[in-house]
Amino acid sequence: MIYKAQSNQKIYVLGSGAVGCYFGGMLARAQQDVTFIARPERAYALNDAGLEMDCKAFHETIQVKASSDLSTLRDADLVLLSVKSLDTERTLTDIKSVLPSKAVILSLQNGVANIDIASQIVNNPTYAAVVYVAAGMIGHRTMKHHGRGELLIGNPKESVLDDEQNLKKICKLFEVADVPCTISPQIKREMWLKFLVNCSFNAISGIGQISYGEMVKSPGIVKLIEEITKEFLAITALENVNITLAEALAANESIATTMVTQISSTAQDLSKGKMTEIDFLNGYIVELGKRHGVATPYNQSVHALVKMLESQIK
Amino acid sequence: MIYKAQSNQKIYVLGSGAVGCYFGGMLARAQQDVTFIARPERAYALNDAGLEMDCKAFHETIQVKASSDLSTLRDADLVLLSVKSLDTERTLTDIKSVLPSKAVILSLQNGVANIDIASQIVNNPTYAAVVYVAAGMIGHRTMKHHGRGELLIGNPKESVLDDEQNLKKICKLFEVADVPCTISPQIKREMWLKFLVNCSFNAISGIGQISYGEMVKSPGIVKLIEEITKEFLAITALENVNITLAEALAANESIATTMVTQISSTAQDLSKGKMTEIDFLNGYIVELGKRHGVATPYNQSVHALVKMLESQIK
Repeated sequence: MIYKAQSNQKIYVLGSGAVGCYFGGMLARAQQDVTFIARPERAYALNDAGLEMDCKAFHETIQVKASSDLSTLRDADLVLLSVKSLDTERTLTDIKSVLPSKAVILSLQNGVANIDIASQIVNNPTYAAVVYVAAGMIGHRTMKHHGRGELLIGNPKESVLDDEQNLKKICKLFEVADVPCTISPQIKREMWLKFLVNCSFNAISGIGQISYGEMVKSPGIVKLIEEITKEFLAITALENVNITLAEALAANESIATTMVTQISSTAQDLSKGKMTEIDFLNGYIVELGKRHGVATPYNQSVHALVKMLESQIK
Repeated sequence: MIYKAQSNQKIYVLGSGAVGCYFGGMLARAQQDVTFIARPERAYALNDAGLEMDCKAFHETIQVKASSDLSTLRDADLVLLSVKSLDTERTLTDIKSVLPSKAVILSLQNGVANIDIASQIVNNPTYAAVVYVAAGMIGHRTMKHHGRGELLIGNPKESVLDDEQNLKKICKLFEVADVPCTISPQIKREMWLKFLVNCSFNAISGIGQISYGEMVKSPGIVKLIEEITKEFLAITALENVNITLAEALAANESIATTMVTQISSTAQDLSKGKMTEIDFLNGYIVELGKRHGVATPYNQSVHALVKMLESQIK
């Protein structure tokens, strides 16, 4: 597998939501060759008027390429996979026949199931990025950035020979684009820590259409998050992931304090009348609980309520 | 204690929400001497333009007396207690000095705590009415009735001498006003069955602003209601109330099918920016669970979420 030099890599953002637009936008702004894959309306808007990046550090409109045509991926060197978890299987199945073997996939998605799903469909080297960014889309071409934006990347499966070189190249690409990027030797653990905070915050923020900072002002919610976390840790122990309760609570605390005004992607999806990723968040914990024979009543409660809210989407 | 003849009883509706306005309105419509106690704005509206009863069987405006002055209760024969559970203690403390000893109190409230709270404050004979009615207020003087409206009444505490006569008089009063009213020898059990369906439906309907019929279309919610019910039954067993799982599920089912389009009072309160009764519903089960050492994670989850939504009320 030959990985092209940074300067002429063809990068595709597969799924142009807030996460795809933030990281793809940062690369495009740094003169990288980036194509955003999006639904026709968004692709048209991005092509036509550019990506407006309303960031904490700057406010610029970046001229970008965008397309709805998956066959354009035939020359891809790097694919930033940023579709919703529920679309991973269908999307990779759709691109399987055109994706060149040289292409490296970096999943910027939530949850811990996507790398496995991808690996069952394509043979390309597939890495995980653990993403902490507070951002949202306003209309089709404006990405509003509220804070953070760093990446931890790595291979959550057993290491293969070219991993380190591939990962270093990805890191360099992001770093020259002002995106802090670190290779983590414990990426699986980092993914589960991110997954934890998603389980702790996404559903509740979605149910209440409420920011992380507001949520934790409610003492019952602090307790609920702690119980969700304890169930989560009972599962991680059985999945051979070692996270202590103190570490888990610190991770939750960090989100509540660094993303005070942020509402979750689940909340954003529900308010836009879109399907959420909840089956891959608290729903996945409930699923793993059933598999392992572990009761998960708190995760089950918030999952059921988000599914109910989803069912009201017309 | 002398209980006045039906024809000249002075009846007070203490708390003029939808339940108070439905049952008080039915009595007023049957020429009974009814005074609605309400906050000034509502009392003014009722006095000025009458109570509009938009019922399934009829649509009439009834001329009624209304007041914000609790001292008017000094000539009360019968008090229909229909304030929210969270206002019981304060309201009875406020009327304690004026309420004549002859006055009989009938609590039309949700939950199972009100009779005990009342008995600790006043010595008047206090009975429970288990109310099944789907109704809501539109503005201050319009009560919209969606269905049902029957009463089961009785003394949930040990029987005292005059109970049967008092209860028969209350029943007759309602029956001549077209309100089906039955004396239940097992009123405590009936209260807990009503309490159960409140625990099953109120919070979830409130969280989703969703009708009972819509709620139960979501398979996860049917399961959640079942788990809430099982926790509830673990508590009833310890409170010496005998309800089987089959009876409990049948009671839930009956609500979902007879009140398809109804949203809960919890949902109505939240949408109007009012405090809810949730501490006396799922919150009370959580409280009893702590007292008895029984885990109640499902009740705790929905309670915490409603408290969070309440905390957002400005």
